[in-house]
Amino acid sequence: MAKVDVGKKILSENDRVAAENRKLFDAAGALVLNFISSPGSGKTTLLEATLDRMPSDLKVLVIEGDVSTTRDLDRVKAHGATGVQINTGGGCHLSARMVAEVLPELNIADADIIFIENVGNLICPSTYDLGEDAKVVLLSTTEGDDKPMKYPSIFHESRLAILNKIDLLPHLDYDDTRAEREVSVLNADCDFLRLSARTGDGVDTWIEWITKRLEEKRS
Amino acid sequence: MAKVDVGKKILSENDRVAAENRKLFDAAGALVLNFISSPGSGKTTLLEATLDRMPSDLKVLVIEGDVSTTRDLDRVKAHGATGVQINTGGGCHLSARMVAEVLPELNIADADIIFIENVGNLICPSTYDLGEDAKVVLLSTTEGDDKPMKYPSIFHESRLAILNKIDLLPHLDYDDTRAEREVSVLNADCDFLRLSARTGDGVDTWIEWITKRLEEKRS
Repeated sequence: MAKVDVGKKILSENDRVAAENRKLFDAAGALVLNFISSPGSGKTTLLEATLDRMPSDLKVLVIEGDVSTTRDLDRVKAHGATGVQINTGGGCHLSARMVAEVLPELNIADADIIFIENVGNLICPSTYDLGEDAKVVLLSTTEGDDKPMKYPSIFHESRLAILNKIDLLPHLDYDDTRAEREVSVLNADCDFLRLSARTGDGVDTWIEWITKRLEEKRS
Repeated sequence: MAKVDVGKKILSENDRVAAENRKLFDAAGALVLNFISSPGSGKTTLLEATLDRMPSDLKVLVIEGDVSTTRDLDRVKAHGATGVQINTGGGCHLSARMVAEVLPELNIADADIIFIENVGNLICPSTYDLGEDAKVVLLSTTEGDDKPMKYPSIFHESRLAILNKIDLLPHLDYDDTRAEREVSVLNADCDFLRLSARTGDGVDTWIEWITKRLEEKRS
């Protein structure tokens, strides 16, 4: 069927470009994390909190993906980030090609950490390799504790699941142990962290997770 | 380019099947609403609250769309709904064909209201007509007040935007007038309602909105 053939061709072409991106990232020794979540789970707020607490000797770059607007890039720039915005103009995920096209605008060779914030979508971005070292999926306590099993693909693909907005737990009917259990059933190799990007609670543990991955990559 | 041609062909075939669905819905005099939102904005919780408060002389059917699991159908059934679950198996939106294929399982001819709960995704479902009378988009106060401009397509397509989880406003930094303003800039014909599906606050106004649309359709 034409649809399937075109779909396969797109994914195989994406994998080819992702491998080229990965070569550039690896040559720089930079750790690249691809952030994926529903709209409004707090990816940008977590990036802001992360930028504020990141060890100052680490050079951080941010690639922001959105359907429309440069709002997220404006926000992380206000926290000192160097970065670039990709607007997909309706597209529901970033592709390796979109990332490849903005890399010349960034000084990759000097980078230690590169955060890629994907388009807010829990489904489509899970299929596309961008050349990252790891996908990181964000959940939020306000979304309901039943999400992992309902959107399994991204949890299969992620190295870490972050439960954000734990400061709101007292006001919600959210069972965080259920969410953690569902993630571990889907992917026993996926780590699980709880934090609040707004209050900063748990953010230090997340920064330790990042620096440990960076050490592993460079060892 | 092959990709574009296949995309156009898929949408035109979808429109053809959507028109067939619409004929069936119109013949029954049933009002059909296509619910779209991010994962966890509260579509299912709102359906539960709606089922509990709907005038008892109105016959309601529910079509549940999810990537995986029958959890949402189980929940609305517990509130007395008759319905059917569609699992897309990775697909990021419902299509008119998926809806057409389950219609024989439902007694459409007898229905007054048909709720279609789309897959949790603020992007892809906006492009697909299912044969509905109106798309209804849900926002939630926990997602951030900047979402309309970042995901404009669904607000262009919707007849109503519902801001859910207003019970959490005291615990959040959410400017609901900003969200409402952004929706009205994107689409002046899109109504805007505030409610809490959890506490029931504002749900009666939403039920009035539905019954008014049903009267309009039948007049």
